[in-house]
Amino acid sequence: MKRYSQETRMLFAVDCIIFGFDGQELKLLLIQRGFEPCKGQWSLVGGFVQPEESAEGAAGRILKNLTGLDGIYMEQLHTFSAPARDSVERTVSVAYTALIDIKQYKQPLNNDYHAVWFPINHHPQLIFDHNEMVGLAKKQLRYKAALHPLLLELLPGKFTIPQLQQLYESVYNTTFDKGNFSRKILSTKLLVKLQDKDKLNSRKGAFYYRIDRKKYNANFNTVLNLVPAGS
Amino acid sequence: MKRYSQETRMLFAVDCIIFGFDGQELKLLLIQRGFEPCKGQWSLVGGFVQPEESAEGAAGRILKNLTGLDGIYMEQLHTFSAPARDSVERTVSVAYTALIDIKQYKQPLNNDYHAVWFPINHHPQLIFDHNEMVGLAKKQLRYKAALHPLLLELLPGKFTIPQLQQLYESVYNTTFDKGNFSRKILSTKLLVKLQDKDKLNSRKGAFYYRIDRKKYNANFNTVLNLVPAGS
Repeated sequence: MKRYSQETRMLFAVDCIIFGFDGQELKLLLIQRGFEPCKGQWSLVGGFVQPEESAEGAAGRILKNLTGLDGIYMEQLHTFSAPARDSVERTVSVAYTALIDIKQYKQPLNNDYHAVWFPINHHPQLIFDHNEMVGLAKKQLRYKAALHPLLLELLPGKFTIPQLQQLYESVYNTTFDKGNFSRKILSTKLLVKLQDKDKLNSRKGAFYYRIDRKKYNANFNTVLNLVPAGS
Repeated sequence: MKRYSQETRMLFAVDCIIFGFDGQELKLLLIQRGFEPCKGQWSLVGGFVQPEESAEGAAGRILKNLTGLDGIYMEQLHTFSAPARDSVERTVSVAYTALIDIKQYKQPLNNDYHAVWFPINHHPQLIFDHNEMVGLAKKQLRYKAALHPLLLELLPGKFTIPQLQQLYESVYNTTFDKGNFSRKILSTKLLVKLQDKDKLNSRKGAFYYRIDRKKYNANFNTVLNLVPAGS
């Protein structure tokens, strides 16, 4: 076995897939790369890991620089390490995902980055393997959203079923049957119907709902059944 | 933004959490480290990523060197990058998991590694952050086994319910009620009852079952319901 000293050192970076919900649809935060190679092309927000920080630390620092947001929960998605993935020099990159409520954070984005929110199903081509990173992040979001009610976290205090349906449709890039969606969502018993209606978006109006926090917290992990699924 | 040339290069390694089922219980493959620091202490199988390979390539190469097994499916678990995790020099490590049927592979382990199978719930302390890696791998295995019938993959062509129960009990480090376990497993309809019994392990005997491959393949992903779980 070789000793440490004979081994190759590599650059080590992070890239952040930041999903945001603006009350209407799910979006992806992209920047225009400010240096060569690929200067001016669209890219995920990222940067090199510094000697005194972990990859998690680097991802948090970069997200804070860009958005001013501190302590946002980020999840490690996957590490990308194909030898030629960066054309300048071998760079290993750990991809992180974050899911934020855009409306909740009024602070404007740091303009040094030229950052723009794009609809998740309509964004420009990205540099290097960033398209692959986004593809994997979307796949994971769909998987998780199917198992856990995590998308509910993104909704405002009160919301309508059509609004919730719109969010799910943007995540799954599809359309759901109205009656079916409503029935399935209500069968989770995680929503509480309120007295008032949203009358702006339809003639009939749509009742507002709120999350039943107690049930939501208690049931978040009940999907684990301790038996093989598939029946 | 700094240029590439000013950034810090780091060592980049992989560590493999290899779970194996020997027909009785789930085990973890460990080696005695052959070089300093921590020479002689127990460790996961690992090594440095070479200039011409990806982390996946390195993990496959290392597993093959140790076990002679080629093309084993390994899954990326998590990247560990705390600045001081390796006492010699900053090393980022990607942890991979594999799940193999020990009986299926008769080839003896490469003795250069002094590798030993330990029961997953009773293994020695490990170097660096390897205990944390194993903890995360076990957590993920439990999570996945609860959602998908992946543990069935480890069983021989025919098996008994008590044998299956033993496997689940070693994964979850608990005991299940016999009747309850049997009822839940059979309710998945993924098993087909055979005519003959195993009469060696109990007076009454236990019927053998086999997996219904057609249903198993068709149902592997039906756990995804497109609605928030928790009801």
